[in-house]
Amino acid sequence: MPPPYPRHLFVCTNRRPEGSPKGCCASKGGEDLRFEFKKELDAQGVKGVRANGAGCLDACERGVAVVVYPEGVWYQGVSKDDVRELVREHLVGGRPVERLRMKPFERSKG
Amino acid sequence: MPPPYPRHLFVCTNRRPEGSPKGCCASKGGEDLRFEFKKELDAQGVKGVRANGAGCLDACERGVAVVVYPEGVWYQGVSKDDVRELVREHLVGGRPVERLRMKPFERSKG
Repeated sequence: MPPPYPRHLFVCTNRRPEGSPKGCCASKGGEDLRFEFKKELDAQGVKGVRANGAGCLDACERGVAVVVYPEGVWYQGVSKDDVRELVREHLVGGRPVERLRMKPFERSKG
Repeated sequence: MPPPYPRHLFVCTNRRPEGSPKGCCASKGGEDLRFEFKKELDAQGVKGVRANGAGCLDACERGVAVVVYPEGVWYQGVSKDDVRELVREHLVGGRPVERLRMKPFERSKG
């Protein structure tokens, strides 16, 4: 479906130069994760959710970041093993997956 | 500021291969547009808005697409000349800029 999407999921796929101290979501599998979301959304027959790549979501040091709009639920350290549960619980069931929720940051600017 | 951001603006910066019939937002200045938003948000002293790059937002044939969450307002064909108004009216004033709003699509899948 074309935009506007009823729900819009962004996966950080940002790529930093090799050796960056924070690492980057591209090197942590961000792009693979995005494809896993697309595949799983299809597999579970979910319509109206776009799984998009995004530039830096500024949580690189915590593994791959994901945010779901319009509800604005953030996840950190998401891996392919989490995708089935995220789709079933959050995107189908409307229940965010608490164990993966992004923890507050103490830095004021990252 | 780190995530979660009170407001999150995505600019399509998707790059397609040369000669793609739809064109792509990278070739239409998506990345420059994103920097213009960052610059203008700073210039107008706006806090709490992240101007992010995004992969394909599926409106390539209409110029650069922008979406603002959590309100889910979509814009099409945005240029650098529009940025000051978008920041002042929408991101500061809370009034979406109607002339730039994305028009409905007739295609069911793009």
